[in-house]
Amino acid sequence: MEFESELAVHRTDIPGLVVLDLPVHGDNRGWFKENWQRAKMVALGLPDIRPVQNNISYNTSRGVTRGIHAEPWDKYISIAIGEIFGAWVDLRPGATFGRVFTCTLDPSKAIFVPRGVGNAFQTLADGTTYTYLVDAHWSLAQKRTYTFVNLADPDLAIDWPIPLTAAELSDADRAHPPLREVVPMAPKRT
Amino acid sequence: MEFESELAVHRTDIPGLVVLDLPVHGDNRGWFKENWQRAKMVALGLPDIRPVQNNISYNTSRGVTRGIHAEPWDKYISIAIGEIFGAWVDLRPGATFGRVFTCTLDPSKAIFVPRGVGNAFQTLADGTTYTYLVDAHWSLAQKRTYTFVNLADPDLAIDWPIPLTAAELSDADRAHPPLREVVPMAPKRT
Ligand SMILES: Cc1cn([C@H]2C[C@H](O)[C@@H](COP(=O)(O)OP(=O)(O)O[C@H]3O[C@H](CO)[C@@H](O)[C@H](O)[C@H]3O)O2)c(=O)[nH]c1=O
Ligand SMILES: Cc1cn([C@H]2C[C@H](O)[C@@H](COP(=O)(O)OP(=O)(O)O[C@H]3O[C@H](CO)[C@@H](O)[C@H](O)[C@H]3O)O2)c(=O)[nH]c1=O
Repeated sequence: MEFESELAVHRTDIPGLVVLDLPVHGDNRGWFKENWQRAKMVALGLPDIRPVQNNISYNTSRGVTRGIHAEPWDKYISIAIGEIFGAWVDLRPGATFGRVFTCTLDPSKAIFVPRGVGNAFQTLADGTTYTYLVDAHWSLAQKRTYTFVNLADPDLAIDWPIPLTAAELSDADRAHPPLREVVPMAPKRT
Repeated sequence: MEFESELAVHRTDIPGLVVLDLPVHGDNRGWFKENWQRAKMVALGLPDIRPVQNNISYNTSRGVTRGIHAEPWDKYISIAIGEIFGAWVDLRPGATFGRVFTCTLDPSKAIFVPRGVGNAFQTLADGTTYTYLVDAHWSLAQKRTYTFVNLADPDLAIDWPIPLTAAELSDADRAHPPLREVVPMAPKRT
């Protein structure tokens, strides 16, 4: 796998949700990438995140689906190995509430997901390994302040490559409410 | 894969080189881990790193070997997927100059490598994916301030699981000097 694209930042229809192209340097050993590089990315307009936690999830098979979770912190997400179909839903109050953005991500892409934007993905390859940086510490208490919406909600009409009936989900993710029952995530107190 | 160990920190014979046990939470989807969690790790005595860059290297086959590189910044290293045999060599001036520590790392382990300690690894599984956080930005100019030592130096006597003659290396890594020719890395100006 070799993707010699230039580092670049692409805005989306969801305010603050930004997709990045990452240079991936291939050689006889495999490849190397700067998965996140604060100075270069801030220079291109990415918010200046100060990560305090880095999480990794491993997904055994194609079709594992996780989400939709809006968390009370910013996230910088990318793929170590494999590929995902990602779906993001604006769950902040305002004109863009409920707006959906989807795209695929492989190791040559990343996405910055601002606080209040719901995050979900489905793996397109066995063994997909997903990594993210966050600027606040997770805790079970914090988890109670997430805003959730259901992956299968017809109002979102997300066109999952693997039907959710055949996908591997957590019981928690099967139980989230539809968009019409979601209370938008309150803005951050400043 | 499921490793439900407690988060723990283990000192080594090389001052400041610390191995961590990471809890890995397995479920029907795969697993999830807090790969790095600043508050919990600082509470256990890990230095309070402030990462500005996150790098990922993908290693196509078992036997890829990289190193030995001492860099002018701290590194927090872990495995997203696969397994490595790692070797670390103290290249700072002083009584522990030349001291070697080796161990294997899989996704349930991490290692903190302080500035001036040489870092090397050999992959034990195809597709091993290696990730690290650093507290300074890399550049080609910075690379000229690395301190290198040869993977095959008999004075280090590192017992590589795959003989280096059968391993995949970069040309640069084949050309590093033996320990007896290495100038210790100068301490950081403060
Ligand atoms: C998010 C998080 C979770 N955990 C633990 C709690 C559980 O034992 C296990 C999995 O947590 P869950 O709440 O099921 O996580 P999951 O459904 O995968 O969702 C999280 O992880 C996903 C990636 O796997 C992200 O895309 C989601 O935004 C995030 O909310 O990891 C932690 O120990 N620390 C954490 O930061
Ligand atoms: C370290 C670094 C490298 N690069 C580029 C330069 C090359 O095109 C490519 C690979 O760089 P190399 O200098 O060959 O990196 P490599 O031999 O793998 O060694 C680095 O990466 C290893 C992990 O792959 C680390 O264990 C070493 O400590 C580190 O020095 O990535 C970057 O763009 N940014 C970086 O931060």
